[in-house]
Amino acid sequence: MAVYTDVSDTDLNSFLEAFDLGAVLSFKGIAEGVENSNFFLKTERGSYFLTLYEKRVQEEDLPYFLGLLEHLSARGIPCPLPVRARDRKQWRSLNGRPAAIVTFLSGLSPRKPDVQQCGEVGAALARLHLAGSDYLFHRANALSVQGWKPLVKSCEPRANAVAMGLGQTIVSELRLLEERWPAGLPEGVIHADLFPDNVFFMDGKVSGIFDFYFACNDAFAYDIAVALNAWCFEPDGAYNITKGRALLSCYRAVRPLTGAEVAALPVLARGAALRFLLTRLHDWLNRDPRALVTVKDPVEYLTKLRFHQGATGAASYGWPS
Amino acid sequence: MAVYTDVSDTDLNSFLEAFDLGAVLSFKGIAEGVENSNFFLKTERGSYFLTLYEKRVQEEDLPYFLGLLEHLSARGIPCPLPVRARDRKQWRSLNGRPAAIVTFLSGLSPRKPDVQQCGEVGAALARLHLAGSDYLFHRANALSVQGWKPLVKSCEPRANAVAMGLGQTIVSELRLLEERWPAGLPEGVIHADLFPDNVFFMDGKVSGIFDFYFACNDAFAYDIAVALNAWCFEPDGAYNITKGRALLSCYRAVRPLTGAEVAALPVLARGAALRFLLTRLHDWLNRDPRALVTVKDPVEYLTKLRFHQGATGAASYGWPS
Repeated sequence: MAVYTDVSDTDLNSFLEAFDLGAVLSFKGIAEGVENSNFFLKTERGSYFLTLYEKRVQEEDLPYFLGLLEHLSARGIPCPLPVRARDRKQWRSLNGRPAAIVTFLSGLSPRKPDVQQCGEVGAALARLHLAGSDYLFHRANALSVQGWKPLVKSCEPRANAVAMGLGQTIVSELRLLEERWPAGLPEGVIHADLFPDNVFFMDGKVSGIFDFYFACNDAFAYDIAVALNAWCFEPDGAYNITKGRALLSCYRAVRPLTGAEVAALPVLARGAALRFLLTRLHDWLNRDPRALVTVKDPVEYLTKLRFHQGATGAASYGWPS
Repeated sequence: MAVYTDVSDTDLNSFLEAFDLGAVLSFKGIAEGVENSNFFLKTERGSYFLTLYEKRVQEEDLPYFLGLLEHLSARGIPCPLPVRARDRKQWRSLNGRPAAIVTFLSGLSPRKPDVQQCGEVGAALARLHLAGSDYLFHRANALSVQGWKPLVKSCEPRANAVAMGLGQTIVSELRLLEERWPAGLPEGVIHADLFPDNVFFMDGKVSGIFDFYFACNDAFAYDIAVALNAWCFEPDGAYNITKGRALLSCYRAVRPLTGAEVAALPVLARGAALRFLLTRLHDWLNRDPRALVTVKDPVEYLTKLRFHQGATGAASYGWPS
């Protein structure tokens, strides 16, 4: 949780002159998002979010991300819609950073998703995949197997300080995934970070999907594997197969999976667990104690990885046979 | 800036069952306020703020603070109005802390108040003093001269690490203020912390005054002295007498000052500067590098104190002769 960049009233007012949103009624830094500075913005026209992109999001990726939000919104996905400036730009500069205004989404993120919510998010993910299938832009997944190698290399020497044997685990897991990583699965735009805190619910239904700043083109089934990791484990580390079954069966009711996708689920789930284990481990080992950021525990994903290592097939995740 | 206490969707929904606000549309931790956890809350009924009182605010003081907001709101002061629960309670428990919901105020806080804003805030402060004059409850100022003594005692041994000679300065300044502190000035409810970030403006007018958690009964002129410190110095440390004149003349146009109040301004300004110097110094010396809080620079108030030490009378602050 953090606001990195402070925006003064005068800076805000001159920024907003480029938009057609009327006078500002309220502007508040939001204590969420660890990558960007986020603000709640209320104007005479309505409620919005203003995001200042800090160093992790590259300005050259913004056409992909913001264009995707427009594309998905037009197809009925409840995601934020960028508010273009009077000159039609999707973002402009504020305090030396690219800054975009998007529409406000209603809803609450579930702290502990229940079975019904897991089903709803499965269906929403499938709708997202279908809606994005004709998106024309392309962005590679920087955090797939090739991207894990430098993370393993930089984390391995100090990983055992976090958990006994973790250094060896990430090295051998990477090696195994490099060998077994599937190719040729159905691909398209994936969210790649669909955690409960990136989804809103209202009245039990998905009312918002957001934080698309890891979105990229990759296998749809990898996105499912990320979601299984993010939604279907209990706080004690146990996999909840009932939640997994709900997520998978609601997904496939919207977009059927190929046999190859089903067969690949265990290895994709291992990969997804390693991806979050590595980025959290990297952030943990390189955390700045002065920064206003809560660093997430990497060990949670080591526990999940251990489960996936023991999985015998898609049935282990609740795939309905 | 900080959110100390995290509130889950389920905790929030059960808390709100006690209120008549309809379903939640949005709930966001706000990155402001260093003493409490603050959330933006949007429901079917409107926009609100939810505050969880952390350790600094004592639950036994809440009737004074929240009752004051009701009292002032009823008299037209643009401050937050507590939303009472169905059982008429002004606050209830959430995550083990007292929690209150108040109405949402529109406006922006000025980063660099201009002369006109200094005048407006002077008039608003005078209206606040008049509106609070018939408030029945009483709360002593815990951060007046008696309250500074333990702060001086605890900070003095390490103060020179912050600025050369600071230890001696706070000891001698406290001694002088103990001797010269005025008694018998007109008293009533004062805000006691009226900084620009506790005031909203819209269209050049004061649209909101908030953060009353230092409010207490004390000399009105001391509140003016706090405001002179908070509003009328430039970032380089220079006192801006034009801003001071605007603040003072707009104040007295609403509530005339007695001769004793005018004469006391320099010593009250010294006291106000010492008060913020001491609390900032205390926070600085005892800061927790892991806490998600930005500690304010105490030296800013040493500079202000030096100005006040050289003041020859109210005219030094722009008091219109």
